[in-house]
Amino acid sequence: MLTRTSSHSLTDQLVARMAERLRNGLLPPGARLPSVRECARQFEVSPYTVVAAYDQLLAQGLIEARKQRGFFVRELRAAAPAAAGRADPAPIRPVDASALIRGMMQPPGGRIMPGTGVLPPEWLETPFLGAAVRRVTTGPLLNSISLRYGDAAGDADLRRALATLLAGYAITATPEQIVTTIGATHALDIVSRTLLRPGDAVLVEEPGWSVEFARLTALGMRLLPVPRGADGPDLAVMERYCQAHAPKLFVSVSVQHNPTGASLKPAYAHRVLQLAQAYDFHVMEDDTYTHFAPAHATRLCALDGLERTIYVSGFAKVLVPNWRIGYLAAAPELVRRFTETKLLSTLTTPALLERALSYCLEQGQIRRHAERLRLRLDAARSRSVKLALAAGCQFMSEPSGLFGWIDTGVDTDLLAQRMLDDGWLLAPGSLFHAERRPSTLMRINFATTQDAGFWKAFGRARTAL
Amino acid sequence: MLTRTSSHSLTDQLVARMAERLRNGLLPPGARLPSVRECARQFEVSPYTVVAAYDQLLAQGLIEARKQRGFFVRELRAAAPAAAGRADPAPIRPVDASALIRGMMQPPGGRIMPGTGVLPPEWLETPFLGAAVRRVTTGPLLNSISLRYGDAAGDADLRRALATLLAGYAITATPEQIVTTIGATHALDIVSRTLLRPGDAVLVEEPGWSVEFARLTALGMRLLPVPRGADGPDLAVMERYCQAHAPKLFVSVSVQHNPTGASLKPAYAHRVLQLAQAYDFHVMEDDTYTHFAPAHATRLCALDGLERTIYVSGFAKVLVPNWRIGYLAAAPELVRRFTETKLLSTLTTPALLERALSYCLEQGQIRRHAERLRLRLDAARSRSVKLALAAGCQFMSEPSGLFGWIDTGVDTDLLAQRMLDDGWLLAPGSLFHAERRPSTLMRINFATTQDAGFWKAFGRARTAL
Repeated sequence: MLTRTSSHSLTDQLVARMAERLRNGLLPPGARLPSVRECARQFEVSPYTVVAAYDQLLAQGLIEARKQRGFFVRELRAAAPAAAGRADPAPIRPVDASALIRGMMQPPGGRIMPGTGVLPPEWLETPFLGAAVRRVTTGPLLNSISLRYGDAAGDADLRRALATLLAGYAITATPEQIVTTIGATHALDIVSRTLLRPGDAVLVEEPGWSVEFARLTALGMRLLPVPRGADGPDLAVMERYCQAHAPKLFVSVSVQHNPTGASLKPAYAHRVLQLAQAYDFHVMEDDTYTHFAPAHATRLCALDGLERTIYVSGFAKVLVPNWRIGYLAAAPELVRRFTETKLLSTLTTPALLERALSYCLEQGQIRRHAERLRLRLDAARSRSVKLALAAGCQFMSEPSGLFGWIDTGVDTDLLAQRMLDDGWLLAPGSLFHAERRPSTLMRINFATTQDAGFWKAFGRARTAL
Repeated sequence: MLTRTSSHSLTDQLVARMAERLRNGLLPPGARLPSVRECARQFEVSPYTVVAAYDQLLAQGLIEARKQRGFFVRELRAAAPAAAGRADPAPIRPVDASALIRGMMQPPGGRIMPGTGVLPPEWLETPFLGAAVRRVTTGPLLNSISLRYGDAAGDADLRRALATLLAGYAITATPEQIVTTIGATHALDIVSRTLLRPGDAVLVEEPGWSVEFARLTALGMRLLPVPRGADGPDLAVMERYCQAHAPKLFVSVSVQHNPTGASLKPAYAHRVLQLAQAYDFHVMEDDTYTHFAPAHATRLCALDGLERTIYVSGFAKVLVPNWRIGYLAAAPELVRRFTETKLLSTLTTPALLERALSYCLEQGQIRRHAERLRLRLDAARSRSVKLALAAGCQFMSEPSGLFGWIDTGVDTDLLAQRMLDDGWLLAPGSLFHAERRPSTLMRINFATTQDAGFWKAFGRARTAL
């Protein structure tokens, strides 16, 4: 809220607040600003203050007035690159998703927010990380690793440890079939850039993670959103898309899907792979949340044996978000091509951090740490579910894993704007659709929604809408 | 050489040797294999052995026979993605360049090779790296940096230190105008992906670094190769390209150009920027070798004030190749777009390493280390130049910096194949042309060509051709 006691005028404060939101993309280009009356009510200032603030934003070229329609965020001349051959469905604006991930990175007030997709840093603290780091940074290893480019495929020790990890998921891959990357993000990017050409059709899950939509759209792909239910993707829709659009790739978060938390059922997995064979497309399985799931969860890559599936995962969710360690596993011929793309995009990856992580993996430390996290998350989830239900929300699928997918009964875009004024970052449902549209749904992070204070603010904001 | 005493037959040894080369891309798809007679002479085996070996490679599907023309490396079905609207000039094959950089990463025999673009690891050893690493990995900093995603633009301390570094080159950039990346490679990739669309025309320098050609080609760009002379790019050719093709970007290694070692003259820099303004294109200045050059060298970004220029550099050449720390600096509106692309490609970068590097920078340690490297390189260069001249080579431009660009008088593709049999990796001239073609030129790394043994082997191979 704005306070009259500040050394800056209310107008200046309002300008600063709106400008910050515009800069961060929380109000994306083309978005309509609240009406003068609505804004005045929201910030508890007079309409004159709002008019003066909008006037300044106009003068700064940040917003524009459209006759009889109100104020809008100015469309930047630097829009996302239009792609050759792009067609239906319409692209989303990357800026929307990146506003959320920027929020993850620098949460307002330093709090980890209900809208984010990470665990609070204190959950990730372990006694073993420091020891692993010391092993690689003291003695001759520091120089021998740091002063050469290293292996294009990634640190050999880590790739061996990852092959063992994958075997635990019933995925058979040799270390030579594994390429390390700068987080799972980089792996998803490498696979997409290598397998796809601008204009290609790609099957994605809807709801789904909008950064994935943004990446594919920026690469010039056509998105084919397949509804994702509690058991898996809508197979009838998927087959119709296959017949009509000849997609080249299906991107799936099969286990503990983002945002619904649901996991793929075996029969669905089998059918998806049959479609992949019949219509000759690849399947990229994004297993980012694997550490919160049981090892025996159904994974497409395990069924398929990495024939036409590509496995992607990483360690941002379980241990070290900033180390940016991810990886992919695939058939040897694909691995050769992915390695070429890695060379062109980052050359190699920091093997110093990879080697330290491999120590943590080899000694079973990450497995035990993940088990502890799962128990803690179970307890948090059970409390969050009760609070969400008490706040009048309904769960769209059985609560599981890190995320809850809830129906709030109100437009969550409006709700998110309003909650932001109270210092809370939400993930509105519109963010999880390939074509952004109003939604009453919302994703919550179970690890960060056990706070009754949050639900109180939520209740107030919801009632006010 | 193949030896008859081995437990494997000469045929098997020859098959293994050739298969290895094919796998590494040292014999790229479509390349013609030596004739049976030539191969027999080269490996000192009988023609029957060669025929038997080629037969096995045929059976393995690695090579193919073309009637009356000989044996060729089979074109893989997985060629580089064809780009929409690609036209003249023809693309090069990324595999050629990546064979060289793989060679840099895992040099045959563990030696740093004359063909590579790095300093020997022992040159990079410093007393201060370990101390800087300990500062970030002991105490609370390890967790506070590692357990959050970090800032999308990169570690704030490093960006502040980089702003100071750039000021030393007369380039004015605030820390907010700087984005850290996974090596300069990632910066070049981010800028290209953000500013260009498939089919766009891009001005590149020829000779130039073929990984840059490969990246642009993989992104679907049309390359316009501008001859690079001792003073700068051929301005007349550049202007003709501007008129005919409306290029969107000029990529330039202005200081200590790769492979010629030449640096841009002020009058050329001024004229390039005039063309950029007149024909409305951006200029990406790749200043990878900056640490070996005088601070006062002419940089396009210094003249232009980062209006339409984008600065790219990193620390792989001077300190820590494997840490993959690079950065870009640009105008604020461009930085916003580049940060979005960074989010989509790697999310963030490992701030732990960035912070450690910032300590080295802040205390002037890298500057003093670079000064020592320059002196050592000066001494090495002067010895290498003498040896190269004695071996009958001519320098195409004044020897300077890390690279010498020499005329050997023989086809350097053939020379490189032959030297590989002696365990030496060369960088033949064809690698530095947008359209691969035979060349008698070759790039040598002054830090790794002071060895009389190398020049002896060179002389033998050259005479035999």
